[in-house]
Amino acid sequence: APEQHLPAIATTRSLRLVAVYSRSSRSVQALAQAAKKYASIAHDDLSVYCDEDGPEAGLDALLKRQDVDTVVMALPIPAQPALIEKAWRAGKSVISEKPVAPSVAEARRLISLSSSSDSSLPSLSTFRPRWLIAEQFPYTPSFDRAARLVRAGRIGRVRSFNVEVYIQVPKPEGEDNWRKVPDYQGGFLLDGGVHFAAALRHILPSPPISLSASVRQIQPYLPPIDTLQALVTCEDGTTGTFTVSFGIERPS
Amino acid sequence: APEQHLPAIATTRSLRLVAVYSRSSRSVQALAQAAKKYASIAHDDLSVYCDEDGPEAGLDALLKRQDVDTVVMALPIPAQPALIEKAWRAGKSVISEKPVAPSVAEARRLISLSSSSDSSLPSLSTFRPRWLIAEQFPYTPSFDRAARLVRAGRIGRVRSFNVEVYIQVPKPEGEDNWRKVPDYQGGFLLDGGVHFAAALRHILPSPPISLSASVRQIQPYLPPIDTLQALVTCEDGTTGTFTVSFGIERPS
Repeated sequence: APEQHLPAIATTRSLRLVAVYSRSSRSVQALAQAAKKYASIAHDDLSVYCDEDGPEAGLDALLKRQDVDTVVMALPIPAQPALIEKAWRAGKSVISEKPVAPSVAEARRLISLSSSSDSSLPSLSTFRPRWLIAEQFPYTPSFDRAARLVRAGRIGRVRSFNVEVYIQVPKPEGEDNWRKVPDYQGGFLLDGGVHFAAALRHILPSPPISLSASVRQIQPYLPPIDTLQALVTCEDGTTGTFTVSFGIERPS
Repeated sequence: APEQHLPAIATTRSLRLVAVYSRSSRSVQALAQAAKKYASIAHDDLSVYCDEDGPEAGLDALLKRQDVDTVVMALPIPAQPALIEKAWRAGKSVISEKPVAPSVAEARRLISLSSSSDSSLPSLSTFRPRWLIAEQFPYTPSFDRAARLVRAGRIGRVRSFNVEVYIQVPKPEGEDNWRKVPDYQGGFLLDGGVHFAAALRHILPSPPISLSASVRQIQPYLPPIDTLQALVTCEDGTTGTFTVSFGIERPS
């Protein structure tokens, strides 16, 4: 949050930071302190919420505020779905991290909740949850330029594609990294690979609708898996291959 | 046969051409005529067999000869299996074309016949059928050099591979070509793609044991299919992708 979200919020004119929250008092104080570095964020009336200070000072209290439209979340993947839903049920829009959820089932449930007319969302008659996944690759100039060239027909028609991403995570970084803690499937491959999937989806003229994939672990220090190869079929019949490995050195 | 097999036989010291056969008199006479171009092939005692001249002058008569060890076949794919088996049953070794057969089932049956102790092969106690598929890509210097570098560990360990072959068959050639006549599955893709599969198998240090594939037709003049993408898994766990298209132009 201090390294990525605060600077991004500070430079976005349509956002004004009115409150910060964390479970612990210590981390929310650090966050509030970090916010003071940014001139465009109003320090003086920045409210601080944490569960340690009791229910009237915790998340539920923050979500009751009428002057909060949108909640920006910087959470580990497994913690996201419950809090996203909680924010929606309180009538707030959400900006959350990628990937959406630790499992396909939870991701599908969230997506359907965000787009369906689920009457269990209390404020649905006046509010449809708005949700932005903070996945930056589609906004990367090179990928976006590729997508624009494809859409303009500048490279001809896409008939086939082959994506190859080889980034070997070095041993110390791999061993220490929270990504390898498999409290969600896929480790580095889910959390890092999702970027390249997002870029590919952004560039392809027709959305992928089915795939067949193999996964395996090559580096012993990168459990549970570090390498994926997939055969992708798009709605228009185009097929392609998608290789992402965090356990194989980039070919020279 | 005149363009590829005769010159190859003529330059192979261990082979001596003693007889030629075709169903029709006209084509076997043309073949015998073509053989006379090669000094190392003994013309004078070259026997000519064809079914039009009656059973005693046809294939069965040829296969009864004790001085014939090996039969070199240049046949369309669907015609191969029956004649390969016939030659084996007559105790002859076979050099035949790729691919082995028009279907996986027929190919498997032939392979099992060539390697098993099938007692229906009459001469098995003294003869085990020998069989060479005339697939040239493993003997191509560049592919063979790649295979030797891999086996010597010169490029490190093979962790993943991506094969991409794009060769668009131009319209007139595609429309006229016998390959597109789908009396066997796959058309160009089976008959042409098998070369690249053979090269890959020659180079890989561990044999492919399973795959998942998509096929489709991109050019209307190349039925039944012209493009294949596969996800390949090898015995040692290595995975890779294999793309072959005769309907997509080579990227520039």
